[in-house]
Amino acid sequence: MKGLKHYLDAVQRIFDEEQFLAEPHELYAPIDYTLRLGGKRIRPTLLMAANALFGGNEADVRGAALGIETFHNFTLLHDDLMDRSPLRRGQPTVYTKWDENTAVLSGDTMYALAWRYFLRQPSPHLQQILQCFCETAIEVCEGQQKDMNFENMGLARVSLDSYTDMIRQKTAVLLAGALKIGALYAGAPQKELDAIYTFGIHLGLAFQMQDDLLDGYGDAAVFGKKTGQDIRDNKISYLPLMALENGNDGQRRELLDLFAAKDNMDEDEKVSRVMAAYDAICLKPVIEKGIAAEFAKAEKTLDQIDADENLKTPLREMLETLNNRKK
Amino acid sequence: MKGLKHYLDAVQRIFDEEQFLAEPHELYAPIDYTLRLGGKRIRPTLLMAANALFGGNEADVRGAALGIETFHNFTLLHDDLMDRSPLRRGQPTVYTKWDENTAVLSGDTMYALAWRYFLRQPSPHLQQILQCFCETAIEVCEGQQKDMNFENMGLARVSLDSYTDMIRQKTAVLLAGALKIGALYAGAPQKELDAIYTFGIHLGLAFQMQDDLLDGYGDAAVFGKKTGQDIRDNKISYLPLMALENGNDGQRRELLDLFAAKDNMDEDEKVSRVMAAYDAICLKPVIEKGIAAEFAKAEKTLDQIDADENLKTPLREMLETLNNRKK
Repeated sequence: MKGLKHYLDAVQRIFDEEQFLAEPHELYAPIDYTLRLGGKRIRPTLLMAANALFGGNEADVRGAALGIETFHNFTLLHDDLMDRSPLRRGQPTVYTKWDENTAVLSGDTMYALAWRYFLRQPSPHLQQILQCFCETAIEVCEGQQKDMNFENMGLARVSLDSYTDMIRQKTAVLLAGALKIGALYAGAPQKELDAIYTFGIHLGLAFQMQDDLLDGYGDAAVFGKKTGQDIRDNKISYLPLMALENGNDGQRRELLDLFAAKDNMDEDEKVSRVMAAYDAICLKPVIEKGIAAEFAKAEKTLDQIDADENLKTPLREMLETLNNRKK
Repeated sequence: MKGLKHYLDAVQRIFDEEQFLAEPHELYAPIDYTLRLGGKRIRPTLLMAANALFGGNEADVRGAALGIETFHNFTLLHDDLMDRSPLRRGQPTVYTKWDENTAVLSGDTMYALAWRYFLRQPSPHLQQILQCFCETAIEVCEGQQKDMNFENMGLARVSLDSYTDMIRQKTAVLLAGALKIGALYAGAPQKELDAIYTFGIHLGLAFQMQDDLLDGYGDAAVFGKKTGQDIRDNKISYLPLMALENGNDGQRRELLDLFAAKDNMDEDEKVSRVMAAYDAICLKPVIEKGIAAEFAKAEKTLDQIDADENLKTPLREMLETLNNRKK
């Protein structure tokens, strides 16, 4: 029986065996740098596990696994440029290490390379597979735009529902799309395609909620970076939005005031005041409940899929790993 | 018999009938703005004419025509951002009218939309069509990187051959790719696919040579912009490179000095001194000869294609139109 580790290793091997350097060097060096930075490789792993779940052949999805991760890394590269983030995975981002133009053009090229990888292997379902990839990419762009809109709107004007819709597009659809693409290569029927997609949406929402939780409540030593960064950046996340839903009028007003205070407050003081407000609302268990609910929905969806229980193991292990992650 | 005008009109109709606005508005407004700015629509027109040349069905390539032009406009949008160009077709560029992040993300989305348009219509040759589109896109990115490298290297270190290779990738392969894609939809045999691609490469090189010539020798009133802008920008083009090939040592030294003089010379004086150097070398007829040679190669390639002479008419008219263009 193949567990999650088998697919994580398979993805690692695919990346190890691929050559990303080419000419002109100025274009491909940042691409090689980005694709070798590592990361959890969740999307290609899900793609391969979903393909196996429906009886697919591992060799058929090597290109798609490369393609989905290359696309994901392209979005991170351009997001880091747009957000002016200096670090990614503890290393300088491309726009910092090189410059803005290099970030624009090497990102564009990575997106084109993602298509090259997808197009390597023929499939009777190629049009549907590529349509799924393409529509996913468009949704990710729409999600990124909504995220930028929210930053301009400010906390008071963003609803929890609209934030969840943004996260669905920006984060969840790519996990869902990766799973569906894996299933499509295996020729899974429509009912199961829908189910594995839904599984991915719940997984993605849980993943983001946990990301937001870790930023506030992670163990800095394990988390690998300072907690409270979202608060320093006035970043809208599940934490302030669910705090606003669960707090009383006074708590709501305090949080909105703290998030509206741009540069006129000491950052560490701001973090401790926001965290104190969260604690007063008992926010942590509320978010944990939200995460558990999404993971439970994902699990229930997986239970209902008509496939060999052994083949569900890697996806169950993925749920468990993500559920228990501390960083 | 359908002439060039039929295909230009057909392309115009396709764009008129397409809806580019969607939500979020902040993302799609700059896309709609860009795709409605017009331009010569050369690439989709070539695609449709090549499809007809090999007996294809016009309705089958509507998506590809939209896709190739959307891709082209995406590259212009990101190029304008990287080159910090304030104007395109006499109108403010997206990064000027909106901002840099909008230019990055709406460009990314246009590239994804190009794929959506390509994926609209099934074809037995879909994988090959999309591979052609994908490899073309990668070459365009490589060409853009080489162009940026050249700007950093300076005129003295760039050879005419390496410049031609850059232009082939940045400009010519997209014309060639558009033609080949049109032919692929019509199920043209490999020999004709190669020929129509070669036709496009020559057309593209002639087009760029003419572009460079017009910048120096165009009639400002007809050209629609001030001539000599490449000289003001110290931009490497066919003009200085072919002047260096054809001048004597003294003329070469003078040109290299003028191009090395960054900001310490009055721009208009610089333009008139460079143009005087070009005239002393008799550069204009040299370039015109180069353009005529590429157009002749394109025409000869078209002559050898095994197809109904009537169906070659729009492509011959395109050659003539581009050959006679004054802007």
